[in-house]
Amino acid sequence: MVGEEHGRTPGTSGFDWVIDPIDGTTNFVNGIPVWTVVLAGVAEGRTQIGVIHDPNVHETFAAARGGGATLNGAPMRVASGVALNSGTVAVGYSNRIEARHVVSIVADLIARGAMVHRNASGALSLAYVAAGRLLGYVEEHMNAWDCLAGQLMIAEAGGCVEDQDADAIIRQGGRVIAGTPDVFDTLREIAERAWAD
Amino acid sequence: MVGEEHGRTPGTSGFDWVIDPIDGTTNFVNGIPVWTVVLAGVAEGRTQIGVIHDPNVHETFAAARGGGATLNGAPMRVASGVALNSGTVAVGYSNRIEARHVVSIVADLIARGAMVHRNASGALSLAYVAAGRLLGYVEEHMNAWDCLAGQLMIAEAGGCVEDQDADAIIRQGGRVIAGTPDVFDTLREIAERAWAD
Repeated sequence: MVGEEHGRTPGTSGFDWVIDPIDGTTNFVNGIPVWTVVLAGVAEGRTQIGVIHDPNVHETFAAARGGGATLNGAPMRVASGVALNSGTVAVGYSNRIEARHVVSIVADLIARGAMVHRNASGALSLAYVAAGRLLGYVEEHMNAWDCLAGQLMIAEAGGCVEDQDADAIIRQGGRVIAGTPDVFDTLREIAERAWAD
Repeated sequence: MVGEEHGRTPGTSGFDWVIDPIDGTTNFVNGIPVWTVVLAGVAEGRTQIGVIHDPNVHETFAAARGGGATLNGAPMRVASGVALNSGTVAVGYSNRIEARHVVSIVADLIARGAMVHRNASGALSLAYVAAGRLLGYVEEHMNAWDCLAGQLMIAEAGGCVEDQDADAIIRQGGRVIAGTPDVFDTLREIAERAWAD
């Protein structure tokens, strides 16, 4: 088991269970009801199972590799046929990265006519991409407990994520670019330009 | 009665009732459970009553001029003693204004160490300032049905808003700068610099 609130502890399931008891801690502490409980199961270098539970509005997003993605048990799909200038992209940032990079991304998205969200729960934003509520999500560095579950969900819901080694993400985190097939390439271009700065 | 979804209709209460049946329409349409129902009662050029109801998490923020502000019936206060670099400020923007202005505001806030939210429901963000969950809110142009209730709430909860003629806001909307006493002057400086650009 690996998680934000505890070190690595051994188990016997054959999975690495990557857990964030609360994603969106600042919201939680301040009383903003936008935070989630996140669970990912990793085996053979890939996320096999992902669950994001939002207790505030009683929504559970879940996915199993090869088995599709669901919201409260019903199949969910990413948005389709929505251009960047007709939708919303969420961004995340933290004190682990150069904050001006996120400003470049926000500026670029707005210049292209997209609306921009930041709700301070990266996992929930990823779940919203999977559910077709947002077009994409970009964050320069996320920890495994915040991103693995959502990335699997987006892939299983018909969206695009980068091909990453989950074990490497568990060790050191990684960049996250995720979106619908309509916008993914553009999001990657926007992100890479900002991060290279 | 004045509202986003209908024109002006006369009544007999002596109040102008300013109503937004759904603030955060884009969220609502996309299935993001972040939207509110907003009501303001205006008389003699000032907002006298404000109510913001969030049906998604069952929270009702309310205020009456001179009577304080409440969250689900309990008194609420803005945050106190929290510096800009230890808190979160929300921003709003729309297609009614020059979008690059909001980029300047985001850049300035981040450079000063603040975290930035945008949840696409301005009224809810204002309610969160009143409830001590956010330090402030800045938007270059808001309509009356989105801002009057929240501004009254913030003032009644011990926060700072600009002194504006509510009747003028009903006619043409206006700028919104709101925050805790600790950060209000700085937010006004940031906003005015960006909007002058």
